[in-house]
This record gives sequence, structure tokens and C-alpha cells, in this order.
Amino acid sequence: MIVHEREPYNAESLRATLARSDLTPLDGFYVRSHGPVPRAGTDRWRLRVDGLVAQELELSLEDLRMDFEPREIVATLQCAGNRRVGLIAVADIPGEAPWGPGAIGNATWRGVSLPDVLARAGIRAEADHIAFLGADVSEQADPPQQFGASIPRHKALASEVLLAWEMNGEPLRPPHGAPLRAVVPGYIGARSVKWLERITAQLEPSENYFQSVAYRLPPPDGRPGPGAGVALGAVAVNAEILAPADGECVAAGPVEVSGYAVAGADRAIVRVEVAIDGDGDRSWKPAELLDDLGPWAWRRWRASVELPPGPVEVVARAWDTAGATQPEHPGPLWNPKGYVNNSWARVTVMVEGA
Amino acid sequence: MIVHEREPYNAESLRATLARSDLTPLDGFYVRSHGPVPRAGTDRWRLRVDGLVAQELELSLEDLRMDFEPREIVATLQCAGNRRVGLIAVADIPGEAPWGPGAIGNATWRGVSLPDVLARAGIRAEADHIAFLGADVSEQADPPQQFGASIPRHKALASEVLLAWEMNGEPLRPPHGAPLRAVVPGYIGARSVKWLERITAQLEPSENYFQSVAYRLPPPDGRPGPGAGVALGAVAVNAEILAPADGECVAAGPVEVSGYAVAGADRAIVRVEVAIDGDGDRSWKPAELLDDLGPWAWRRWRASVELPPGPVEVVARAWDTAGATQPEHPGPLWNPKGYVNNSWARVTVMVEGA
Repeated sequence: MIVHEREPYNAESLRATLARSDLTPLDGFYVRSHGPVPRAGTDRWRLRVDGLVAQELELSLEDLRMDFEPREIVATLQCAGNRRVGLIAVADIPGEAPWGPGAIGNATWRGVSLPDVLARAGIRAEADHIAFLGADVSEQADPPQQFGASIPRHKALASEVLLAWEMNGEPLRPPHGAPLRAVVPGYIGARSVKWLERITAQLEPSENYFQSVAYRLPPPDGRPGPGAGVALGAVAVNAEILAPADGECVAAGPVEVSGYAVAGADRAIVRVEVAIDGDGDRSWKPAELLDDLGPWAWRRWRASVELPPGPVEVVARAWDTAGATQPEHPGPLWNPKGYVNNSWARVTVMVEGA
Repeated sequence: MIVHEREPYNAESLRATLARSDLTPLDGFYVRSHGPVPRAGTDRWRLRVDGLVAQELELSLEDLRMDFEPREIVATLQCAGNRRVGLIAVADIPGEAPWGPGAIGNATWRGVSLPDVLARAGIRAEADHIAFLGADVSEQADPPQQFGASIPRHKALASEVLLAWEMNGEPLRPPHGAPLRAVVPGYIGARSVKWLERITAQLEPSENYFQSVAYRLPPPDGRPGPGAGVALGAVAVNAEILAPADGECVAAGPVEVSGYAVAGADRAIVRVEVAIDGDGDRSWKPAELLDDLGPWAWRRWRASVELPPGPVEVVARAWDTAGATQPEHPGPLWNPKGYVNNSWARVTVMVEGA
């Protein structure tokens, strides 16, 4: 792992780890935290469901396991700051971790569906937002507070949204939110609240710092502040090159280029293309799309590309079901929080002569 | 109107018409046709619903009016080739009309909801696609055939999809599909089949020429053909400048720049920004978003921008709820059918000295 911060712990996956398999191994799965891992004994832990509901609930892990149908989904989680390093190369972004391409991971999640739990509580018609609260306290918030978020009602009632206690067939580990976390596929990772202890049905979005101040996309010249910018939810079409790595030396000839692509909520990846900078007209070559793991998972891809000797920039871009593709450069996407860098993937490799 | 073709009739709205109002007047609303307007007498006209249904239906306009709850929606329709002229400037696209920014329009549509009609017919669980067939016969298809399309089941069951007989409070006019047309908000206009006479529930997408060959996004070096490229459905985030017009002379000082933005299915416009080329760093200025007409309508916008004397390029771009914005240049989007030009809006104006 590439550790950006020890306390709170923030670390991203290595390119090689992500390149290896459809499911990211737990030992190499990125961790984004905003405070120390809370000590939540499973015995005492309860999930409270309250707010605009017919019946408040207090559920133990055993209640969740016994009273609801278990669900499993393959879903990719991605930090809103994934690929920020490309924006930092344009202009510095002080106070934010320089995430490379590894603030993302794909896993099988097992738990219960959020709509099932909300149906048990009976959420009222006017509850337009469902708020999550984690047990972790963040000193980075102003004032210090537990980590929270909210998602709109239509998403909360979608069957893909889980309350999960298992990841890749193993019990959820403490850094990933044990004993229970939200998993909101297609949305930025910050909405998949870890160490989940409270779900509240409410009229308005959460006023928690991490919904109302952080994780909002400010305009290029904007300053973060309460309600400034746009609260991020669904993620944008994006792609990265995992191999070869930036700066790697490779032998001339056909080189296998591989990576991942994500489409975000309500969209799917339909095409990934690779090109080399030497081409004046950039003749894009279609990549092979690998296993289709369902609508909420990334799509890994690979292409065999003939590279000429010398330093060569290899670029890649993905297309989604709306016929939308990625912007060419990070420059026009720069913003003072460094979110949503979905510009083309670029690595420069040194191709050794034949 | 700017008439691209007399027969079949293809004409786009003037910038000035679109700039004038939230709802595009019927006299100035773009028309995209693939064959002559069919003579469909309302008396004899029937809508047939068949395929994988429990009960085939044959409905007169009177049946639709009497047996179903009337619905109204404000929705923008946009041709997949809107803004193609920007791609043609990169490299010629023979055989396709050079649509400017006016192959788009916004209207109030009144009719019945498609899910209501499908519920009456009882579509079977395995019917993953709903196909539409119009009465118009196109000689442009190979072989010549009636115009058709299909949409996936999840979209066909969404309440925003209408079978409409009224547009802006007036009976649907012949060029717009009288007596009845599909209106599929958030999707390319080609799926909103006009002169609708048949709806078929089926296992696979329509094999009609306009679904299986045309209206598919080919790769840059690809050739159109059956099943080649990606069938277009949801539209991508996009924006255009309506005033000032490209090439217009304006007085120095603050100039009002205005236009439209569209977000496509399941997304909304959250921000529009305007900049001038003279800025090395492109200081983007947020535009004011005008009336919010609901989730399926365009968002008109305006900004007051200080323009220096001389020729000035004014650019604009929109952002959607996924934090996605438009690519900078049309070049990397070029494709041999000229679809989905969602690069930044650009007009060059001549600013007269003070």
C-alpha cells in the first residue's frame, strides 16, 4: 500500500494489486479515514433507525442477520479524490492527499438491503433524504464530529444499496467499517459510511460536515464552505492505466496495456480506447473489456499496443452508455479540493530500442 | 428555421428562437425525419400493443384519452446529431446533415404514460425491450422500412415516458408525429418515435435499421454496420451558447451570454460556466441558471461577461450531478456518423473598440 497518512490511516492500493484480479484483496484495498478507527464491540453495537419513520428501530447484528434476507453485490468503491495527483500537477492543492490511481477497489459485499430495513421502519413520504452516521469522530471536521453523509431517497430505496458486514467473503475488517457499513454503489466512497450506527430519514440532506462542507465540488476559483459548490454523489465516467506503470521501462514491440474503467450510477462502460501520443491523429485502438461483474463494478480492460522506441505517452479513455467520454486534460478540471479528476489516463513509459 | 433537407424534411431551430423562451414555439421546433410525413387519418388510426404481453391491445386515440389517466411532462428532445457541425469542422462527415446547435427543443407534452399502457397489456417478465414502430417509411434505411426503435424495459417502465398527442397545449402537428408519438425524455430524439402505430414487448433490442445500424456510436476509425458501435440511448451532458451568435459584432463592455444545457437521463445540470479565450488560465465565471423546469428539461442560463475589443472566443461548459463536465475539443470526439458532440460550446464574436 502507498500510505499517505498514518493517523488517521489513509492508504491507496498499488497499481499491481489492482491489476491482478477482479476483486481487490482485502490486504491491498484502499482505506480512507477521517479519524481513528472506533472501538465498536460487536456485542454492544446497535444500529438505530429513526427520524421520519413510522417505527424507530434498534437492531443488533444478529437481528439484521436473522430478520432480513441476506444480499450480496459486487461493487466498486472509489474516493472522490481518486487520481487527484493529476490535478496537483496542474496547481498545488494544499491539505489534500495526493491520491494516485489506487483510491479505488472492487469487492463482493454481503449484508442486507437498505430498502428492506427502511421498509421495516416505514419511512414517511416526506423523507427525501436518508442520513448515515458513523461511530468515528473526526478532528478534521469543524467542529469535530462523527463522520456522516446522506443520500437522496430514490437512491436509498434502490436495491443495490446494502448495509454490509462481509467483504470478499470475510467479516468486515475494522479499517473498512466493522461491524457494519453502508455500501452505496455508483456513488463516491464518502457516502458508504463506515462503522454505521445510525440511519435517519429526514427532509433535507445531512448537515454533517462531510456532506455540507467537504465532498462538495467547488468551482475552480471557489473556496470550500458550508453549502458552497455541489455535493458529490454519483461518480463520473473514468479510467486508469494500471500497467505499465508511469516511468516504467519496457522492451520495444507489442506491450500489454491494462487498467480499469468505471461508469458511475445508472451508466455502464461500453468502450475503452488506448492511443499513443506519437500519433498525430491519435488512432485509438479499442481495448478488450474483461469480465462483466454486473452494473455496479468496475470494468477491467487490456489492449496490446505496439510502442516505438523512446519515451512514449500511452493514453486511455472510457465511454459510457450515454456516449460520454472523458475530458482530455486535467487542467480545465482543476478545483481547490481536487475532486473528480476524470481526464484521460496517461502514463509515460521508456521503450528500449530493439 | 434552417432547412437542411426539404424531402424528407429536416430543419433546425434558429439560435434566436431557442434563446427566447423556456418552451420552444411549435413553429420553430426542430424536425428530424427519415421519410415523408405519413397520412394517418385519426379516425382509422389505431395503436397496437403486442409481443410478450398477456393481452394484445388495439387502442384508438379515444381509448387512450378515456381509459388512462392523462399525464403531462416538460421534456427536451435532442437529435443525436445536434452540434455535428463542430465535428465536421474537424473532418468531413459525408451524408449527414450539418446540424448546428438547434437540433433541440423543449416542450410540454401531454398524453398517457407508457407504463400505464404496458400494465394494461401485461408485459411478461422476460420482455427486456420495448420496441416502437412508426408509420413513416424511410428510403434511407437498407432495406427501406418503417422507422423504428427500442428502449430497455427499465426505461419503458419509468413514469416520464409518454405516448403524447399534445405539444405545448396544441394537438400534435403532422411533422412532429400526429396523431401520437413516443416521448422518451433524457434519450436521443430517435427513440421518441413519431406517427407511432405499434409497441412490441420483446426479448432483444429492435432489429429495425434505425436501432441496429443507424444511431449507433461507432469508434473513430469504425465503419457503420449492423451491430457495429454502441446503440445510443441516454444523452450526455452538453451545452450551447445561443447569444451572441458565432461571428456576431458586439459593442465592448459587459455582454450577456446565454444558452442552454442538458444533462441527460438520471442526471441534472448543477453548474454552467463561461470563459473567454483571452484568459491564459481561463477564469471561469459561473452563469446564472434560469427556470428549473423539472428533471427532463433543459436548463437555460445566462452570464454577463466583460469582453475586450477584437475577436474574442467565448466558451461555455456545463457540469452534471456526477461532477462530470464536457470535453474541451471536438477533435477527440470525432466519429464517422457525427454523433454526440458534447465538447465545449464556442462562439467567436467581434468586439468593437470603445
